[in-house]
Amino acid sequence: MDKSIFTQHISRQFNEELEDIVNRVMTMGGLVEQQLQDAVTALSEGDTELAERVVTRDYQVNAMEVDLDDECTHILARRQPTASDLRLVMAVIKTITDLERIGDEAERVGKMALHLLEQDRQASPMAEIGQLGEYVNRMLHNALDAFTRMDPEAAVKTAQMDINADSQYELIMRQLLKQMKEDPESIPRMMDIIWAVRSMERIGDRSRNICEYVIYFVKGKDVRHTSFEKMAEEATGDRR
Amino acid sequence: MDKSIFTQHISRQFNEELEDIVNRVMTMGGLVEQQLQDAVTALSEGDTELAERVVTRDYQVNAMEVDLDDECTHILARRQPTASDLRLVMAVIKTITDLERIGDEAERVGKMALHLLEQDRQASPMAEIGQLGEYVNRMLHNALDAFTRMDPEAAVKTAQMDINADSQYELIMRQLLKQMKEDPESIPRMMDIIWAVRSMERIGDRSRNICEYVIYFVKGKDVRHTSFEKMAEEATGDRR
Repeated sequence: MDKSIFTQHISRQFNEELEDIVNRVMTMGGLVEQQLQDAVTALSEGDTELAERVVTRDYQVNAMEVDLDDECTHILARRQPTASDLRLVMAVIKTITDLERIGDEAERVGKMALHLLEQDRQASPMAEIGQLGEYVNRMLHNALDAFTRMDPEAAVKTAQMDINADSQYELIMRQLLKQMKEDPESIPRMMDIIWAVRSMERIGDRSRNICEYVIYFVKGKDVRHTSFEKMAEEATGDRR
Repeated sequence: MDKSIFTQHISRQFNEELEDIVNRVMTMGGLVEQQLQDAVTALSEGDTELAERVVTRDYQVNAMEVDLDDECTHILARRQPTASDLRLVMAVIKTITDLERIGDEAERVGKMALHLLEQDRQASPMAEIGQLGEYVNRMLHNALDAFTRMDPEAAVKTAQMDINADSQYELIMRQLLKQMKEDPESIPRMMDIIWAVRSMERIGDRSRNICEYVIYFVKGKDVRHTSFEKMAEEATGDRR
């Protein structure tokens, strides 16, 4: 972690507390990445054991969110941070909310993989789905990387990956609908796949949210609900 | 609003600021309720104009979230609240995130209504869908009401409504899948309906989140990821 992102405080302990919460976001992020990776592999390769592990491990993600949220509230109460320290705590609070929800979506992919495997052991969904899963996992990874380095330009680049994620998603959905029409017997199976693909698309959205918090921390600008152009403009502008 | 929920501060202005953010949550909540109501009506009655209004008005919900979030950060920096004041600000920050997302789901219902109407002017989806829409709107209303009064028992009751929302959702989904199988030509249309119904189910989940923040504010306990029994136990326990 680049320690220069923190204001240097008279209190060494306050510095350590801020470093600690950012490190814990990374640990939580690492677990969520692993969950997503495992869920996508379980779905692509029809691995029941792996899918079960994803589902049973989700509680760990939840527990990390609750603990970190509590720690952030304690820092707010005890240290009463202002300016960039306050923005850092706020960015952490928001990031862990999205990470927890990404964990839920990964769990959902795991559950759908299990459900599919119960119906048909040989089932392997089309390759494009695994590719979308890999793509949004890379997006999540890059978003967490931008967060660790608090790098607004990397954040913008990563957020823009969502355009590609959305078009991959649209393409897959069109193919799935076509298959359903051609073979109505496959509908229940196709619906499981649709839910998994939808979860992947939402993970892209949430990774983009994390990128927005990086820009908020560094630039002090709330770029939610703005265009990619506006976001890039804010990210490359002068630090206020 | 029940003003006794606030600590009385030496600074009258601080009291006013806290009252102001809660009032603004209510205003935002009112708009989101209206959006959901209009989206459900547009879908049930096939009202194109109403659906369009929902879609074009979503930016107002987003703007309210950004402004309120900014105001909360300013209060944290300026007033450095602790104890229940801090919990109130945190509860507001989390509630508006969920309200904004409920707004997005309502917008999605509006978009699906529009999409359906483009395909078939006469289309009217089954009555159960309108009923689920009404039900989650009541849930949202009750959650906001529990929030205004900071009433943990009302919050638990409202959160429990999610059980019923989920079973209504399951029932509708089974019927929709059956219709798709029987009439594969209807699949694209059915998918639009499925997305709308899914959005309604998610609105139930998010209204439940708001109830959890009420319990967090009043009892200082984080009841996310716990059972309804545990939630009820915390809500009725003594104030710490």
